[in-house]
Amino acid sequence: MTDLLLTNVRPNAGASTNILIEKGRIAAIGDQARSRAGLKTVDGGNAIAIAPFVEAHVHLDKILWGLPWHSIKVPGTLRAMIDNEVDIRKTLPWSVAERAGNLMRQCVAMGSTHIRSHVDISPGYKLDNLHGVLEAWEGTKHAVDLEIVAFPQLGMLIEPGTVELMEAALDEGATVIGGIDPANIDGDPRGHLDAIFDIAHRKQAKIDIHLHERGELGLFELGLIAERAKALGMQDKIIVSHAFCLGDAPYEELAPIKDMLAEAGIGIISAVPGEIPFPPLFDLAEHGVRCAIASDSLRDTWNPHGNGDMLERCWLLSWRTNCRTDEELIAALDMGTKRGADLLDLKGYGLEPGCDGSLVLIPGENLAQVVVDRPKRSLVVKRGRIVARDGNWVDIDAP
Amino acid sequence: MTDLLLTNVRPNAGASTNILIEKGRIAAIGDQARSRAGLKTVDGGNAIAIAPFVEAHVHLDKILWGLPWHSIKVPGTLRAMIDNEVDIRKTLPWSVAERAGNLMRQCVAMGSTHIRSHVDISPGYKLDNLHGVLEAWEGTKHAVDLEIVAFPQLGMLIEPGTVELMEAALDEGATVIGGIDPANIDGDPRGHLDAIFDIAHRKQAKIDIHLHERGELGLFELGLIAERAKALGMQDKIIVSHAFCLGDAPYEELAPIKDMLAEAGIGIISAVPGEIPFPPLFDLAEHGVRCAIASDSLRDTWNPHGNGDMLERCWLLSWRTNCRTDEELIAALDMGTKRGADLLDLKGYGLEPGCDGSLVLIPGENLAQVVVDRPKRSLVVKRGRIVARDGNWVDIDAP
Repeated sequence: MTDLLLTNVRPNAGASTNILIEKGRIAAIGDQARSRAGLKTVDGGNAIAIAPFVEAHVHLDKILWGLPWHSIKVPGTLRAMIDNEVDIRKTLPWSVAERAGNLMRQCVAMGSTHIRSHVDISPGYKLDNLHGVLEAWEGTKHAVDLEIVAFPQLGMLIEPGTVELMEAALDEGATVIGGIDPANIDGDPRGHLDAIFDIAHRKQAKIDIHLHERGELGLFELGLIAERAKALGMQDKIIVSHAFCLGDAPYEELAPIKDMLAEAGIGIISAVPGEIPFPPLFDLAEHGVRCAIASDSLRDTWNPHGNGDMLERCWLLSWRTNCRTDEELIAALDMGTKRGADLLDLKGYGLEPGCDGSLVLIPGENLAQVVVDRPKRSLVVKRGRIVARDGNWVDIDAP
Repeated sequence: MTDLLLTNVRPNAGASTNILIEKGRIAAIGDQARSRAGLKTVDGGNAIAIAPFVEAHVHLDKILWGLPWHSIKVPGTLRAMIDNEVDIRKTLPWSVAERAGNLMRQCVAMGSTHIRSHVDISPGYKLDNLHGVLEAWEGTKHAVDLEIVAFPQLGMLIEPGTVELMEAALDEGATVIGGIDPANIDGDPRGHLDAIFDIAHRKQAKIDIHLHERGELGLFELGLIAERAKALGMQDKIIVSHAFCLGDAPYEELAPIKDMLAEAGIGIISAVPGEIPFPPLFDLAEHGVRCAIASDSLRDTWNPHGNGDMLERCWLLSWRTNCRTDEELIAALDMGTKRGADLLDLKGYGLEPGCDGSLVLIPGENLAQVVVDRPKRSLVVKRGRIVARDGNWVDIDAP
């Protein structure tokens, strides 16, 4: 079943109308979207329809979502947190596939139908996390598209064998090469970046680098990344996640950096941290830097917060940046929807005839109010198939 | 009906037990809390029971809650926002009483059974806002206690007649004298503070001052406030709301200021802003400064955000301050519950025999998880009476 007629829905909070999905694509919106014999028809109840949320950065293999409460210990340093996670994961009675499946279903229930997930790759883990996440995806593939980043969480140059495993991950389903804090983890910014650009360039993979490094160090590394993106012709294939350094930089220092990022086609993903500064996303976007927000670490050994709800994340962005006008609130929504799709270069994304028949229904007055109130998603549709209803995952065989 | 037996509840997330309320007070918890003929008994469904949330700072007269979406205009300066509000309120088709009643019921539904509300007093408004809020309270008195602050939002010394109206408000139901930005609104820190301390001292009222003024200016004014509190023997009667300057101060400058606040008995209320720094509440509390959090401006002409849910506010505090351990998350919960009660000096507050029979039931595993997940409140009880259920206000005559 990939044909579906939705009646009484309001695309992007406009007037109530119908949306017809045929063979998984939006065939018509409005008067041309008519019923016919045998066509599954759902009354949208006058809800707002938007194109789906995009979960651009999450860690499906780390998740403890749906499991009994895990009391977090914070052993202090980043390195200690990394080692802490490795120890705890050895003791978990649930497999990667079980845990990853829990979070994927939750993301879908909240309206995200595309996920980019990092998976930890290391000599200890080997490709187990990749395999576990792919196994989970078998049960959710009809509901959510998945991109996998081979992520050297434990370090790369300092963990011999990691580079080779990351390359192997590309042969087994990953499509993006990750990186992490080239200075503070591997102690070698140029070496770290050269290694990941080398794999990505040879294997025609994308790159997505965790850059937590603050201030001048982070800005220096952004420069190294831009240099390599341009030299290898990899513009628009590179994302830097977090990039807190862009939130630390004084406003006057930021102008040339914005130009550099735009020119090198480097996109920025922020999880919108609660406590520390983060990149000025709206300003960057205005200067032509592709930006989006994402959940990142949530309900895992690192962080008790988060729930995979990208609408809540959009609201947090709006609240953290003091969005008050409707225009500002809608710009925050865009960061978790269409700007995410643009950043990840998703084909067929949108709420227009010809696009994928994927959308989210949200009861509400208008888009600004929806951002502030975060109503439960009444329906989530992926290529014509109902995959969640009233905030809950719908099994593939359910009516 | 002010007698009530709750069975199968977990006080502060402890073991499941019973709580008996008689004549509006907690009579027994545990084995002594037994049923008897004619006693209303409610199964708590194994929910966690906590003492109620405390809404320590809200503006009931400004609220647009429950009304069609209001698109905010941000005309720029604080003065322009103040004037903007006055203009808009002239055009509203709903009375103060209707609007204030909407928000009070929402606060109760979310588990707050004590509200401190500021009401705007000015020569233009006269005491209309006070009267409107008191009228609304007629319909909610069984569910929520109310303290009213006579608040000179439009300025005090620059608006002749305001001081006299604030004093008159104390004779008609207000119990607290407000103040606002003594420098930037009235242009006279000493004059502003002398005037409000004079009324409060003569009329034995408390004081609650809005202090948005940042940096050194705000810190200077905190000094003037402390000086007056001590000189007039008004320690523990003074609250400064917002006090962003305490978030701006470098850590080393803060030590003597914390001592000064503790010694002068000045309490701090923060609404936990999303964008700007705010007082280091946990640190202040550790140094003996009474602190709490509150909603402040919400869904009004100033601010689209907020919903009167103090559990969400506790979570926002925890997220904004990177609380990750259970202990830290519970400390955030305390800021919206028992620390609020302590700051406002609420008699009978607590979840022990002898305390008011007021409590909130929340389904959940433990207190840390409840802060992070913010489940719907399953029951709110005020002095033995059920006042909200499953996140909804319960009318007084409902079963």
